[in-house]
Amino acid sequence: NRPLCLSWSFGLRSRMLPRNVHSLGTSSMNQRVEDCHRHDEAYGYFLPIQTRWQDNDQYGHVNNAVYYSYFDIIISHYLIRYCGLRTSLLTSPMVGFMVTNQCTSHKPISFPQVPVAALAVEKVGHSSVYYHLALFPPKATKELPSVNHWDLRDGFFSGHPKLVHFDSLACTNGSSVHVFVNPAPRKPTDLPEDFRRGLLRLVSPASV
Amino acid sequence: NRPLCLSWSFGLRSRMLPRNVHSLGTSSMNQRVEDCHRHDEAYGYFLPIQTRWQDNDQYGHVNNAVYYSYFDIIISHYLIRYCGLRTSLLTSPMVGFMVTNQCTSHKPISFPQVPVAALAVEKVGHSSVYYHLALFPPKATKELPSVNHWDLRDGFFSGHPKLVHFDSLACTNGSSVHVFVNPAPRKPTDLPEDFRRGLLRLVSPASV
Amino acid sequence: NRPLCLSWSFGLRSRMLPRNVHSLGTSSMNQRVEDCHRHDEAYGYFLPIQTRWQDNDQYGHVNNAVYYSYFDIIISHYLIRYCGLRTSLLTSPMVGFMVTNQCTSHKPISFPQVPVAALAVEKVGHSSVYYHLALFPPKATKELPSVNHWDLRDGFFSGHPKLVHFDSLACTNGSSVHVFVNPAPRKPTDLPEDFRRGLLRLVSPASV
Amino acid sequence: NRPLCLSWSFGLRSRMLPRNVHSLGTSSMNQRVEDCHRHDEAYGYFLPIQTRWQDNDQYGHVNNAVYYSYFDIIISHYLIRYCGLRTSLLTSPMVGFMVTNQCTSHKPISFPQVPVAALAVEKVGHSSVYYHLALFPPKATKELPSVNHWDLRDGFFSGHPKLVHFDSLACTNGSSVHVFVNPAPRKPTDLPEDFRRGLLRLVSPASV
Repeated sequence: NRPLCLSWSFGLRSRMLPRNVHSLGTSSMNQRVEDCHRHDEAYGYFLPIQTRWQDNDQYGHVNNAVYYSYFDIIISHYLIRYCGLRTSLLTSPMVGFMVTNQCTSHKPISFPQVPVAALAVEKVGHSSVYYHLALFPPKATKELPSVNHWDLRDGFFSGHPKLVHFDSLACTNGSSVHVFVNPAPRKPTDLPEDFRRGLLRLVSPASV
Repeated sequence: NRPLCLSWSFGLRSRMLPRNVHSLGTSSMNQRVEDCHRHDEAYGYFLPIQTRWQDNDQYGHVNNAVYYSYFDIIISHYLIRYCGLRTSLLTSPMVGFMVTNQCTSHKPISFPQVPVAALAVEKVGHSSVYYHLALFPPKATKELPSVNHWDLRDGFFSGHPKLVHFDSLACTNGSSVHVFVNPAPRKPTDLPEDFRRGLLRLVSPASV
Repeated sequence: NRPLCLSWSFGLRSRMLPRNVHSLGTSSMNQRVEDCHRHDEAYGYFLPIQTRWQDNDQYGHVNNAVYYSYFDIIISHYLIRYCGLRTSLLTSPMVGFMVTNQCTSHKPISFPQVPVAALAVEKVGHSSVYYHLALFPPKATKELPSVNHWDLRDGFFSGHPKLVHFDSLACTNGSSVHVFVNPAPRKPTDLPEDFRRGLLRLVSPASV
Repeated sequence: NRPLCLSWSFGLRSRMLPRNVHSLGTSSMNQRVEDCHRHDEAYGYFLPIQTRWQDNDQYGHVNNAVYYSYFDIIISHYLIRYCGLRTSLLTSPMVGFMVTNQCTSHKPISFPQVPVAALAVEKVGHSSVYYHLALFPPKATKELPSVNHWDLRDGFFSGHPKLVHFDSLACTNGSSVHVFVNPAPRKPTDLPEDFRRGLLRLVSPASV
C-alpha cells in the first residue's frame, strides 16, 4: 500500500496555494507523484535537523532559502558517510554541483523545533543523481522521542521506530539534481561504482 | 523580437545537465518558456547583488541555497520600495510566505563578483504573486560599469543602459510563488490596490 | 581543583596567535581567566551542535561568523527551555539584544563534525546577562557517544557522563553580553524573577 | 584634531550597556581607544554593504553574527583587490584564519538599509594582521548619496566626499586578528612584501 512513485516531477501542490496554482503546468499525474513524495514511506534515509535562531526570518518562521541548506546537510552527510565522498578540494577526484532544485512549503516550521529531513534517490545517471527531499516536523506531543544522539552522525533508515515521533506528512518537500565533475577540467565525471551503490540503496522500489 | 513568454513553467534546462534530464517532465513548450526567461529582456526590474565571502562554499562557488537569498533580496526590496510593503510584524497588515520556488544554475558565480538580479511578474492573483527571477553575471571586461550607488537603493528598470555591463544570458534563473496572509488568523488576504499596481508594472507584455 | 574564574575578561589567547599578541591589552590575570574558560569544568549547560555544509567556507573550515550563530543557538535554546523566554514579537514583553561579543578560535572544526556548545553565566544584572561560551570538538575516537537525541531538545548539564565523548579543552571560546529591552519603547527592562533564577543556575561557584 | 588611537583594545563601550559594564575589565584608556574607533576618521577604507532580508532576525534587526560576515566581506575584498590575495585553495600559497574577533553594537540596523563598512589596520606582524572594523549607517535624509556603483568593486578611501552621506559615528565597531598559514603544513607563513605594503596603506598615522 505504498503509493506508487511513477516519475520525476517538478510540479507543485500545496494547501496554502490558491486553487488556480494547481492548474499551472502540473498535470494530474504530476500531482499524484508530488503527493506521494509528501509521505515518509517514499524516503529511505533520515537525519534530524537542528534549527537555528537565525533560520527564523523577520516573520518568525524558517526562511525559504534555509530549506535548501537543510537539504544540503542530509545529501552531503549521506554521500560522505555512506558513499565515500571526500569533500576536500585538495584531494577529491570529483565535486558535486547542484544544478537545479525546487521545494514547496506546506506548513511553516520555526526554531527551536527539531524536524527530520528525508532523502530518496529517483535515479542515478552516469554523472548525475536525482533526489527527492522532504522535511517532517516533530509530532506535537509532550513525549520525548527515544532516539539516539548518533542519529546526528549516522541518521537512520526507513522503517525505523524513531519515525513514529515525526509527522508522516511532510511540511516541506522538494527535489534536486546533482552533477559531478572533475575539479580541474570541470567535465562531468563517471560516478565510481561504490558511490553509485551507496546511492542505489535509496532508490525506492516504486521508482525502479 | 522579444521572445514570447507563454506560460508559467517549473521546467529545467541547463547545458550542465546530462542530456536525459531535459526529457524528464519538461515538454518542449516548457523548454521554450524556460529559455525565454534566461534573457534579460524578459525582466522588468534589476538590482545589483553584493556577494559575500561566506556565500562561496567549500568548492569555491556560491552555494545553491544562497541563490534563494539573492532572490529574497530583490523581491523584498521591490515590494518595500515600489509597492509600499511594510515588513514589521508589529504594524504590517499582511505577511508574505514563499510557498514554492525553484532555480536552475547554468554557470557558477563566486565572491567577489557583483552580478545583477532580475525580477519579472508572471501573474498577480487575489492573494498570490508569481515571479520569475534570474541572475546575470558581470561581463568579463576591464571596463567599470558606469552605474550609480543608488542602484542598491532603487535598482533600475528594463532598457537601462547599465545592463550593457552584464551578460544578457542568465547564469541562474528560477521562479517562485508568494502568498500573502493576515499575520493573526493566517488566512490569505486580498492584495491592496496600490500593492497590486506596483507589481503589475513588472508583468511583461508577453505574459498578459 | 577547578580553576578559579575571577572576573569578566575580553582578553584573548591562542596557540595560533603570534607571541606578541598576548601582550597586547591582556594582563596575566586576564590570561588565567581566559584559560579557565577553555575547560569544560567552567560551564554548566551543554548542547550538541549540528554543523552544516554551508558552515564551511572556501578554506574548508567553519567560518568565524558561524561560531556566533552556534552561540546564538545555545543561548536562545536555554532561555526558551529553562528560563521561560517567549520569542514572538507579537506577544513577548521583552526582547534581547546581543550588544557585544567576542570569540577566539584555537583549533578549526569542519562539517560534518558534531561538537558540543557550552554555556556559563558570569553575572546577571538588572536587565543584562554576561555569558561565557565555548565549543568542544568530539574526541577523535571510533566509539560512538552514547548520548540521546533529546539532547537536541534538552541539552545536558555539567557532570554528565556524555561529556567524556568530547575534548575537555575548547577549540573555540568567547563571551557575550545580552541586554533585554521592552519591544516598544526600547528601554532596558528588569529581568523577571523566574527568568533570573534560570540563569543563576549557570553561574559557576567561582564567579559568585 | 583626529583622535589619537594609542593601542589595540578589546574593551567595550555602548550607550545600550548598563553602566556597570563599563567598569568591567576596561581601563579608561581602553575606553578612549574604543571611542576613537567609533569615528570614521579612524578608518582608511570603506565598502558599502548590501543588507539582506535574511540578515534580520526574528526581532527585525540585523543579527549579531551577521556583523562578522560584513567584516569578512570588507577584509577579503580589500585583500583580494589591493593586496593581491588569491583565495583558491588549489593555487593559493597561503590561507588566512580569523583567530579572534569581537564587536560591539551601539545602535541596530536593518534590511533594507545600506550602511558602509570601514577597515583600518592596527599592526602588521610577520604572519598576522590586526584590524579595526566598523559599520556606519546611512544618514536619515531623503537625499540620495551621489556615490558610484563601482564602490562595490573598488570601495573608496578616507577623505572621500561620499562619506558625507553616512553617519560619522559607528553603529557597530570591532576588531579582529588574521593569521596566515601555509595550506598544507598549516604553519604560520611570512607575509609577502606587496601584500604587506597593501595593508600598511591602512595603518592610521596615530597607530604608527
